[in-house]
Amino acid sequence: MIIVLKKNIHEAQRESLRSFLENKGYTVKEIIGQEETVFGAVGQSGLDIREVEMLDGVASVVPISKPYKLASRELKKEDTIVTVGNVKIGGNRIAVMAGPCAIESREQISTIAGLVREAGAVILRGGAFKPRTSPYAFQGLGEEGLQYLKEAGEKYGMPVTTEIVSPSDVDLMKNYIDMFQIGARNMQNFELLKAVGKTGMPVLLKRGLCATLEEWLMAAEYLMASGTDQIVLCERGIRTFERATRNTLDCSAIPVVQKMTHLPVIGDPSHATGLRDMVNPMSLAIVASGASGLIVEVHDHPEKAFSDGPQSLYPSQFEKLMRDIQALAPVVGKSLE
Amino acid sequence: MIIVLKKNIHEAQRESLRSFLENKGYTVKEIIGQEETVFGAVGQSGLDIREVEMLDGVASVVPISKPYKLASRELKKEDTIVTVGNVKIGGNRIAVMAGPCAIESREQISTIAGLVREAGAVILRGGAFKPRTSPYAFQGLGEEGLQYLKEAGEKYGMPVTTEIVSPSDVDLMKNYIDMFQIGARNMQNFELLKAVGKTGMPVLLKRGLCATLEEWLMAAEYLMASGTDQIVLCERGIRTFERATRNTLDCSAIPVVQKMTHLPVIGDPSHATGLRDMVNPMSLAIVASGASGLIVEVHDHPEKAFSDGPQSLYPSQFEKLMRDIQALAPVVGKSLE
Amino acid sequence: MIIVLKKNIHEAQRESLRSFLENKGYTVKEIIGQEETVFGAVGQSGLDIREVEMLDGVASVVPISKPYKLASRELKKEDTIVTVGNVKIGGNRIAVMAGPCAIESREQISTIAGLVREAGAVILRGGAFKPRTSPYAFQGLGEEGLQYLKEAGEKYGMPVTTEIVSPSDVDLMKNYIDMFQIGARNMQNFELLKAVGKTGMPVLLKRGLCATLEEWLMAAEYLMASGTDQIVLCERGIRTFERATRNTLDCSAIPVVQKMTHLPVIGDPSHATGLRDMVNPMSLAIVASGASGLIVEVHDHPEKAFSDGPQSLYPSQFEKLMRDIQALAPVVGKSLE
Amino acid sequence: MIIVLKKNIHEAQRESLRSFLENKGYTVKEIIGQEETVFGAVGQSGLDIREVEMLDGVASVVPISKPYKLASRELKKEDTIVTVGNVKIGGNRIAVMAGPCAIESREQISTIAGLVREAGAVILRGGAFKPRTSPYAFQGLGEEGLQYLKEAGEKYGMPVTTEIVSPSDVDLMKNYIDMFQIGARNMQNFELLKAVGKTGMPVLLKRGLCATLEEWLMAAEYLMASGTDQIVLCERGIRTFERATRNTLDCSAIPVVQKMTHLPVIGDPSHATGLRDMVNPMSLAIVASGASGLIVEVHDHPEKAFSDGPQSLYPSQFEKLMRDIQALAPVVGKSLE
Repeated sequence: MIIVLKKNIHEAQRESLRSFLENKGYTVKEIIGQEETVFGAVGQSGLDIREVEMLDGVASVVPISKPYKLASRELKKEDTIVTVGNVKIGGNRIAVMAGPCAIESREQISTIAGLVREAGAVILRGGAFKPRTSPYAFQGLGEEGLQYLKEAGEKYGMPVTTEIVSPSDVDLMKNYIDMFQIGARNMQNFELLKAVGKTGMPVLLKRGLCATLEEWLMAAEYLMASGTDQIVLCERGIRTFERATRNTLDCSAIPVVQKMTHLPVIGDPSHATGLRDMVNPMSLAIVASGASGLIVEVHDHPEKAFSDGPQSLYPSQFEKLMRDIQALAPVVGKSLE
Repeated sequence: MIIVLKKNIHEAQRESLRSFLENKGYTVKEIIGQEETVFGAVGQSGLDIREVEMLDGVASVVPISKPYKLASRELKKEDTIVTVGNVKIGGNRIAVMAGPCAIESREQISTIAGLVREAGAVILRGGAFKPRTSPYAFQGLGEEGLQYLKEAGEKYGMPVTTEIVSPSDVDLMKNYIDMFQIGARNMQNFELLKAVGKTGMPVLLKRGLCATLEEWLMAAEYLMASGTDQIVLCERGIRTFERATRNTLDCSAIPVVQKMTHLPVIGDPSHATGLRDMVNPMSLAIVASGASGLIVEVHDHPEKAFSDGPQSLYPSQFEKLMRDIQALAPVVGKSLE
Repeated sequence: MIIVLKKNIHEAQRESLRSFLENKGYTVKEIIGQEETVFGAVGQSGLDIREVEMLDGVASVVPISKPYKLASRELKKEDTIVTVGNVKIGGNRIAVMAGPCAIESREQISTIAGLVREAGAVILRGGAFKPRTSPYAFQGLGEEGLQYLKEAGEKYGMPVTTEIVSPSDVDLMKNYIDMFQIGARNMQNFELLKAVGKTGMPVLLKRGLCATLEEWLMAAEYLMASGTDQIVLCERGIRTFERATRNTLDCSAIPVVQKMTHLPVIGDPSHATGLRDMVNPMSLAIVASGASGLIVEVHDHPEKAFSDGPQSLYPSQFEKLMRDIQALAPVVGKSLE
Repeated sequence: MIIVLKKNIHEAQRESLRSFLENKGYTVKEIIGQEETVFGAVGQSGLDIREVEMLDGVASVVPISKPYKLASRELKKEDTIVTVGNVKIGGNRIAVMAGPCAIESREQISTIAGLVREAGAVILRGGAFKPRTSPYAFQGLGEEGLQYLKEAGEKYGMPVTTEIVSPSDVDLMKNYIDMFQIGARNMQNFELLKAVGKTGMPVLLKRGLCATLEEWLMAAEYLMASGTDQIVLCERGIRTFERATRNTLDCSAIPVVQKMTHLPVIGDPSHATGLRDMVNPMSLAIVASGASGLIVEVHDHPEKAFSDGPQSLYPSQFEKLMRDIQALAPVVGKSLE
């Protein structure tokens, strides 16, 4: 940590500050400049930097260590390739996950699975336990839905993923699915992260609505510290003053976070925009930004969907999207295969 | 819902739109103006307004019903007074809850309880299960902490409150505490809301870091729909572009939300600012805004606190704060007693 | 405007409200529903909707007219094609504007003009009057810079654009340039908008750091109401809580605003990210989102640039970018030619 | 500046980095720690820190000097007391400025001046050149309005203030007014800041809608570097995701910025909330936060105001507010006299 000293600091304050830091286990070096003098304090310590900010003679304090370790690109230089069933995510591959917002029936998920598989999707998504803003909204089919999802995945040779909303569902879910999803609203539900991490299974970790990149990586760190290293990060829009779209897709987060971590990053254009017409342009923007894939909501009859119909693609729109991605992929040095 | 029609809508589109709405159970009235024509559609239906926005001939759609019902001031005009043990929250009373961020030992919580009680606090707070951004940080004493909290509360005649972070802790915790706290990061952890709501016990519901007032009331609605009507809302700062303070205290949310709901609203100056020196001015600003109380972090030795020491008040600062509140209360027509 | 009435409104209040609106020139229709009753009030009036919100018996008020007219897609369905010298912006054409942040010398702007022209740029940019956050930073060469810019543009057959920061510079500048730029910080400098609009010349209007799409279009409306219809909108990043990049590029604003207005929209990846390494991926994301072009900072020696060197591309990076755009353009149905 | 080195930096990179910094005039010291090694570089240089961030072997760079000097509390420890006519702003005094949003007629401004003076306001405000979001809205009476404002101020012994929107109005306005106002949308209109600063007259500088505290102080620095040291800062709400109020009043900015600068800070509850009912609670919150005063919109007939009627207080509400402030002032160690 770097401690910028006040210009009028007394000698006694300066020494008292140095002693304080040394007692906490830091090595302290002083740098005297024309405009300011700073202490550089290095060492491993859980000290809250605000403790130091409040000491007499201190103008400001700047942390220099990153709080995430296992997720850091510094620790591991090579890209992590996450394996979900027979699918690899990361590297030069663009992996597209698709399916309905909610699993509504055995027939519905099977039909949609067939359609998205045909168009080129490699992982099937579908919600069985839905986190809904209103207590009066459809909350999902539960275990019955998981059963249908697994069947549809097996039928079309696709690994499956679904969102988990409670630590107590871990044991049940792991029998049915290939990858857990942690939703944006649960990104800092630390008990859920610990329970899911312990399984060692792949996890799709969505960015919270107002999570900084560092907080997002700290959530990944929770998963990794608990036992899994198979994590796919997913940008899905952040909350800003602009409300013309449901959220603001933060495209530049994709290349930026890719420098900070070795974990693959994908994007979710459906939740980012909330509007079907915006899904295709934003999907292309996500791929152009360098993402390792997409997760997209598709429904055979969006107008009858139990939830999020307005942001679900029609099958023909999804087919068009897959063709466009195929054309775009070489521009960014990647491929769908 | 109000549907603004496009200027160039065809007669057939207009009729098709009207039929669509009527089939969904709405009564439709048309209003023809100089600049625009609108359909007013009234009725009870779970229709996602984005469904209508996408129909041909529709320029925009505006919802007019509020999604929260039980929490709404329209449903219940009189202020709800929440009862926590022997303490009433709401109405003309300013209730101050205080205590350390984390319970660290039997002696620590007992000492602090005595100090804050003496200064005028009426409810004791202290964390036993801590949601921490880093998996490597102190996570609380768990049940042992709850035991110490309960003892300290009984010793000084104060009801106690602590944060709950997992649905599976409900049964354990309800034996020890008088009010649950739902933290900002769990405001939309719907499984937790349902589990806590079922107890029927009082709940302190913090506003999420990027929650709108409506989403905050929808979280209260989850609690109410699950079985409790004893809810205290707590403004604790929102995330904005300004990072000079940890969060941005949204003082005006206090009078605004008080118009929307009958539930009492308090403020948390400690988490809103993250800085001890800002706690007292912001506490006064919260009370001046019309809040029904405060929850404040106090520690007998903040510099040795296991967590959040830098935002914890020294006992003498808390005593000063309570005297200032006593002087301020009559200006806003309230009192500490 | 739609007025939602309170459930407990008295008959007298209702009639008084109706009279108030009719006196203001509105036609009022009532819609009675199960859950709520609303008044639809149509007519042309400058009434501030907050006036109505405060009347007794009113629960809320919803505006239905858009405040921008001339800029609206409803008024003019076909895309506006803006003509800047020999260049057309809009339609299926992707127009790339490039050049240094600041004009530093006759030689510098001429050299860079040649490089970007060779790579495929069609308009030359360069700042002569620089709006700088610090009063102590380089403020531009002024008229001398304009002279060099004009010469460089003529030498390489490119129309030129530069930022204007004061209404008093209009007469001077119009002798030298082909298109005015209004910067993000001046988007609501209405006196500047009026002065520039009066010239009838093309204008590149950047979005303000915290401007909603509607406010952005209202700024365009100022320009149009003052006398020009040759306006290019430019998304250049908004301010959000995320500070890993200088601003947050709002890609989805591009297709959304394109539905609201007939004016062409381009993107500025240099200011949006502030980081050279992010300029190319974000340029591709902007084009993939459907933009009509880009404005990019390029410098022959970014490490010696007087300003914004760190976000300026090296010439070789710009050449690579232009090749990538050429490959990407057909995917979105466009071309560079 | 502090440069954090990458863990795998080569010796040659390290030396090359050191040379680069020394050539730019910095003194460089190295601090080697267990987890990271940093360079501390001190010296005066206009180097853009992003230049350094891009060098090989650099993990991150942290600035340690503040960019504002004249406005800084470090340069001048004592509070600046700004003198506007016969009124002092700053120190233990709470100064209340009041008046209508826009000057509408000689009679209107005179009537309101009498009312607010009687209630205890010490400075009269009123807009003559109005910056309006819509080109079709009332833009103010211009010089005629300034004349009426001056007359009203003289009649009731109050100095007057009004907003300036163009550098070309400086000479005209300084004959009529005692203090310039720079509005939120013009906070970074640097040409305006320079022109106003040159007069040496007092300036009320509002915070921009999305300005950080540092940017706000940099705007003050522009004024000071141009020739005035009589600056009053005014917090008036920032733009956030929350739209229940027009803006989000950032109360905690008041004590925070007061630590950063010696200039006095006041608050504007009218623009912060946009709603009359919120003006009084937020006025009290501003004073409780430690502000040196308020600027409040008051109108004798708000329902007939040409602009911002819905946020203007009735005279009786303003009288009540002044009585409440008088009661509150001693709690924060201040007084209205």
